[in-house]
Amino acid sequence: MPDRHDHRLDDLLDVAAADDHAADAARRRFAALATPPGALGAIEQLGVRLSAAAGTCPPPAAARPVLVLAAADHGVHAQDVSPWPQAVTALMVRTAAERRATADAFARAVDAEVVLLDVGVATDLDEVLGDLGDRVRRAAVRPGTQDLSTGPAMTRDQAVTAVRAGADAAHAAIDGGADLLVTGEMGIANTTAAAALLALTTGADPAAVTGRGTGIDDPTLARKIAAVTAAVGRHRDDDALGQLAGAGGFEHAALVGVCLAGARARVPVLLDGVSTVAAACVAAAMAPAVGGHLVAGHRSPEPGAAAGLAHLGLTPLLELDLRLGEGTGGLLAVPLVRAAATALTDVATLDEVLGGG
Amino acid sequence: MPDRHDHRLDDLLDVAAADDHAADAARRRFAALATPPGALGAIEQLGVRLSAAAGTCPPPAAARPVLVLAAADHGVHAQDVSPWPQAVTALMVRTAAERRATADAFARAVDAEVVLLDVGVATDLDEVLGDLGDRVRRAAVRPGTQDLSTGPAMTRDQAVTAVRAGADAAHAAIDGGADLLVTGEMGIANTTAAAALLALTTGADPAAVTGRGTGIDDPTLARKIAAVTAAVGRHRDDDALGQLAGAGGFEHAALVGVCLAGARARVPVLLDGVSTVAAACVAAAMAPAVGGHLVAGHRSPEPGAAAGLAHLGLTPLLELDLRLGEGTGGLLAVPLVRAAATALTDVATLDEVLGGG
Repeated sequence: MPDRHDHRLDDLLDVAAADDHAADAARRRFAALATPPGALGAIEQLGVRLSAAAGTCPPPAAARPVLVLAAADHGVHAQDVSPWPQAVTALMVRTAAERRATADAFARAVDAEVVLLDVGVATDLDEVLGDLGDRVRRAAVRPGTQDLSTGPAMTRDQAVTAVRAGADAAHAAIDGGADLLVTGEMGIANTTAAAALLALTTGADPAAVTGRGTGIDDPTLARKIAAVTAAVGRHRDDDALGQLAGAGGFEHAALVGVCLAGARARVPVLLDGVSTVAAACVAAAMAPAVGGHLVAGHRSPEPGAAAGLAHLGLTPLLELDLRLGEGTGGLLAVPLVRAAATALTDVATLDEVLGGG
Repeated sequence: MPDRHDHRLDDLLDVAAADDHAADAARRRFAALATPPGALGAIEQLGVRLSAAAGTCPPPAAARPVLVLAAADHGVHAQDVSPWPQAVTALMVRTAAERRATADAFARAVDAEVVLLDVGVATDLDEVLGDLGDRVRRAAVRPGTQDLSTGPAMTRDQAVTAVRAGADAAHAAIDGGADLLVTGEMGIANTTAAAALLALTTGADPAAVTGRGTGIDDPTLARKIAAVTAAVGRHRDDDALGQLAGAGGFEHAALVGVCLAGARARVPVLLDGVSTVAAACVAAAMAPAVGGHLVAGHRSPEPGAAAGLAHLGLTPLLELDLRLGEGTGGLLAVPLVRAAATALTDVATLDEVLGGG
């Protein structure tokens, strides 16, 4: 379904497929190592996947991982789908600007960089951030989306703008040397939008992919499912951009851009929780080859995340029952990506061991 | 059951219990953070555990993790319980001395140090190591244990010597600043000894805790179970040191020493696969308070590991289907320990966020 705006994404959609030759090279290298066959388990599978994504074996070392942490607000918050006031999004952004969010702590623990990206926080960030304003990459499309339960969350034009904002942040990170992108988000009520995107992209029933987010009661869950159902009913037959615009959030759109930009540049993209998986499903709907460039960091307890990961054919590396978002589960998987890469570069082969080094 | 040699371990057995006050302080801190209750999942539980082990909240940052990688050979190898020649142990040690073992690659990926410890490799290491001899801490008790299927693997005196060699390596690491110890081992046939130790310490049936190691066929597995059964029958009523001496390996004994020394110094000890879990069970049998100082890094596919971890009440952080040993699964959990510590130091509280920072 061509559209007057779609051509503005064409350059991002030109993603190369994962490289079977590089995957085979990685498999051969693992088989040649001085370790019993299959002894590296999921790390071996990860090394093969990273090589295929990079198009080369060994893959990059994940020496400079960058988390793109995209923040925005949601009109559907008005439907009382979250126990948190909308203003909390801006407070989370300020905390991250202070480098005191959980994502910052985990980024420090795994030696990753965090890029904060505002694509549509409703609260005036200038006021909230004060002196810290320059710590946030400012690309707000507007102060929050419209209410997805009553009409499209964004126009297609706004969605494209947000996708490009995420892609631009990813490009800047890659230009700065990033060899691994991690996806993260902050936005009160954004699991409602994520559920809608997951229902639309996977074809799953809205009730099956709508979860309790950071902890909601039954009446709130019922309102959340109703909101998701309304959006899904309206946008079921749209193209991927139409579904993103109709039911998504600006931060989801930005992370679609991160997925596309990473895949296009052959820099692997680590997924986190349900919102990042929703964004990945949209990106893969726009450009199916994107799937081969994604790595699932953490198994989110949200039901929609499982549906999305199954749709993408991804198995998460970690299962730590994190339910925070912010990219926290993706960050904690960064050392596993490093381990898979170093296994392909640093470990001796059996021939070398038997031959005396 | 007092014994003439036990007093030589007395100083190591004086382990303080995990500190409930520090655990409570960690729980209170997590509850005060600007995150939804329980949103940090296993990382929160880990932070509580680390605080209790350290006796202080926040716990140390795991800034200087050290893997003690203990190597030795096994008389039970003569029973054809492994597909690998015994000489492979020495080749593994040489590869690690070259910093090209998988443990070295993973240590690099997580920024950890590796201390190689020979407590009884059968092959002449001087010849095998050449110029690299100084990269191995030499504390060989003798060139491999006796065959545990036909008699005690070691004398009690030898077991004590190996325990102390491991404790000495741990003490040296701690003196050098190590704030996290990781346990690892190399030793062809050592999963047979590990299974025997696990059957003895947990009371499990030998067949239930004897696995296929790095891949053995049914007849080999039957021989392995027979060897384990013989040792278990002989040492069922021994004290912990007697069971270690009767059925263990020198590297298991050394890792008992690492567990005891770490617990005593309140430096947490990260476990890896089945051999390290077996050592931890022996250490906990000698000094029950040790259990509170252990962290399970990885869920080994070996059945004995599951029995041992259940016995110790530990839930592993990772499940990556690694079946290599060498401390690889423990190393990959190091960043999670760091994340748990940084969550307790770096993340803003809700009061701070609402109060304006």
